[in-house]
Amino acid sequence: MKLLILTNLVVGLFAGAGWAQEPARVSSPEVGADRRVTFRLLAPKAHEVLLTGEFMPGTRPLERRDDGLWSVTVGPFDAEIYHYNFIIDGVRTIDPGNPRVKTGSTPSTISSVLQISDARPAFYDGQPVPHGDIRTHWYQSQSLNSLRRLTVYTPPGYDRDVQTRYPVLYLFHGANADENAWHQLGRVNLILDNLLAAGNARPFIVVMPFGYGVPPNAADRQGQNTAMFGKDLIGDVMPYIESRYRTLADRDHRAIVGLSMGGGQALSIGLNHLELFGSVGGFSSGLGPAPDFPKTYASLIAHPDAANGQLRLLWLGCGTEDGAFAASKGFSDFLTEHGIKHTFRSSGGAHTWMVWRRYLYEIAPLLFASTAAPTR
Amino acid sequence: MKLLILTNLVVGLFAGAGWAQEPARVSSPEVGADRRVTFRLLAPKAHEVLLTGEFMPGTRPLERRDDGLWSVTVGPFDAEIYHYNFIIDGVRTIDPGNPRVKTGSTPSTISSVLQISDARPAFYDGQPVPHGDIRTHWYQSQSLNSLRRLTVYTPPGYDRDVQTRYPVLYLFHGANADENAWHQLGRVNLILDNLLAAGNARPFIVVMPFGYGVPPNAADRQGQNTAMFGKDLIGDVMPYIESRYRTLADRDHRAIVGLSMGGGQALSIGLNHLELFGSVGGFSSGLGPAPDFPKTYASLIAHPDAANGQLRLLWLGCGTEDGAFAASKGFSDFLTEHGIKHTFRSSGGAHTWMVWRRYLYEIAPLLFASTAAPTR
Repeated sequence: MKLLILTNLVVGLFAGAGWAQEPARVSSPEVGADRRVTFRLLAPKAHEVLLTGEFMPGTRPLERRDDGLWSVTVGPFDAEIYHYNFIIDGVRTIDPGNPRVKTGSTPSTISSVLQISDARPAFYDGQPVPHGDIRTHWYQSQSLNSLRRLTVYTPPGYDRDVQTRYPVLYLFHGANADENAWHQLGRVNLILDNLLAAGNARPFIVVMPFGYGVPPNAADRQGQNTAMFGKDLIGDVMPYIESRYRTLADRDHRAIVGLSMGGGQALSIGLNHLELFGSVGGFSSGLGPAPDFPKTYASLIAHPDAANGQLRLLWLGCGTEDGAFAASKGFSDFLTEHGIKHTFRSSGGAHTWMVWRRYLYEIAPLLFASTAAPTR
Repeated sequence: MKLLILTNLVVGLFAGAGWAQEPARVSSPEVGADRRVTFRLLAPKAHEVLLTGEFMPGTRPLERRDDGLWSVTVGPFDAEIYHYNFIIDGVRTIDPGNPRVKTGSTPSTISSVLQISDARPAFYDGQPVPHGDIRTHWYQSQSLNSLRRLTVYTPPGYDRDVQTRYPVLYLFHGANADENAWHQLGRVNLILDNLLAAGNARPFIVVMPFGYGVPPNAADRQGQNTAMFGKDLIGDVMPYIESRYRTLADRDHRAIVGLSMGGGQALSIGLNHLELFGSVGGFSSGLGPAPDFPKTYASLIAHPDAANGQLRLLWLGCGTEDGAFAASKGFSDFLTEHGIKHTFRSSGGAHTWMVWRRYLYEIAPLLFASTAAPTR
């Protein structure tokens, strides 16, 4: 195994400017041509270093050399984007040698990011195709009396075709994440850019609000979270978007989809507001207790024929290795029992972005497909 | 000292959904009403935990209790945004209890973020005023034959006043950072929103490209970095911006400013292209060796009267505790010696974002002030 210890690259730039020289840097992670990965950590004083990551179950110890450089080589792994952590003397933290860090709204989500590529670009990779833009807005929520952020994807050409109006997907993140998650971890823009370039989806706007209606650290108020989030969504976010973007502002051209906590939000808000949303989806959804379904979804099951006539898409997905699988399956059974047409996509995979990126790639071509949409 | 050990907040949301319960979380950092700060880490197996941060020189040890909870209280500190790290058994890493993480293009920049606030909002805080937007573009650089990102700030109302054209500030980050740095660490949007709301600046667009013309880890090619970056800036970024935004596309309405590595880039590109840029600034600039100044700035010093007539603003700033101070002072002396009018702002502070946020706040009101600008 070739060991690379790089001196800090930047020092040379400022030679003579008086900056202190930074310590030598260890190359980690290093992906080999065989898709095996070597992780390294310079830690002469540490007693134990473990690796944990989405590419393998459990943990693997790194081994220490005499000079205090720890390393382990694992794999080969499939081409994917994985999250991982080091556990250094019992403390779960990032790989200090890797600049790519996954963050969110709580510390439990902090990880390092590893991408393994193969010869072909993946469906989530940036490619030389027309690109949409990501916009970050700050808005004053009247519903929540606070300054909040939201992220918007506009498809390629949005700023040029100033006559065209677009459908809108409201897309929600999960617990511990934030309004950047679908962009930074979910690669929403690149996935849609690639689908559009291949002619496999219609262009639409994606709106990604911050999913906490009460602060993520307000433990005693989490029961109100979806209700407060829904107030902000309907009372502030949707009017903000519809006054600033060229939207097709009717139920046939609005979809509401989320993952995990956001999946529960999308289903409960969407299925209780079919006058607003014609397409509804939940990925690995956080659904609440099954005995509450009849009450939470009372208006839906009261008039199944009306609901079936209104719903252009109702899509549930969950990986079989996901702790949320039984709840998603139970919700699908509940819908079937009450005669509500839907798709239940049972896939491989666990509660990870690997699954959610694929689900977005799968459902984007289905969205707004049966409605009159702007020509492309 | 009150010790807060919070159980993970999110678990309650998914009770029954089958997720594994996450470990108890330690509250860190905790800012007291007296602006003293307590840092904590649960690390029963660690042997030494140190704190290092921009709020104090050197390091401070955390003290271990019998149950393995380490902590230290330091301060009081002034209201500011500070970056800090833990050093756990010799490994410099983040505070795993803090969701706010500073990232960049190399791992040397990874830190945790601490904000200490006063009763009054700071000039960089989000306030209930009209807000501009941040846009992220992916573009194919013909100069560099690669897919790159750039960040753009548009002032409040940009999308509504569709007849108005705006001046443009090209604003560059430093080494180890990326095109998000001025937004996420520099708070460029909030600083300008606040200045605009107070009537203390004219509205302008800010363009923040990725500052590496060669990859930050291509150590042997860093000597070409500014030249390659300049090719991308002039050949790709500026045409991209001027074709997509309503700009005032002349030298009087273009400024070029950067910090550290980006300060060196702004000065060398800007002062060699006075036909393109009427205002030039460098914060804590990475300037290269002083003996090279006459060659690097040959066209500037060849015609000082012409340059003085063209330059609406030439602004250098550096903190006296910054390792780059002597170089900035030397460059100011070089300009004086050659009769080039400029401002040299010598402030307190070191090589930190605390200084750069303030410099942006100071120079924004000076930019485009003497040119015919759109009415506000």
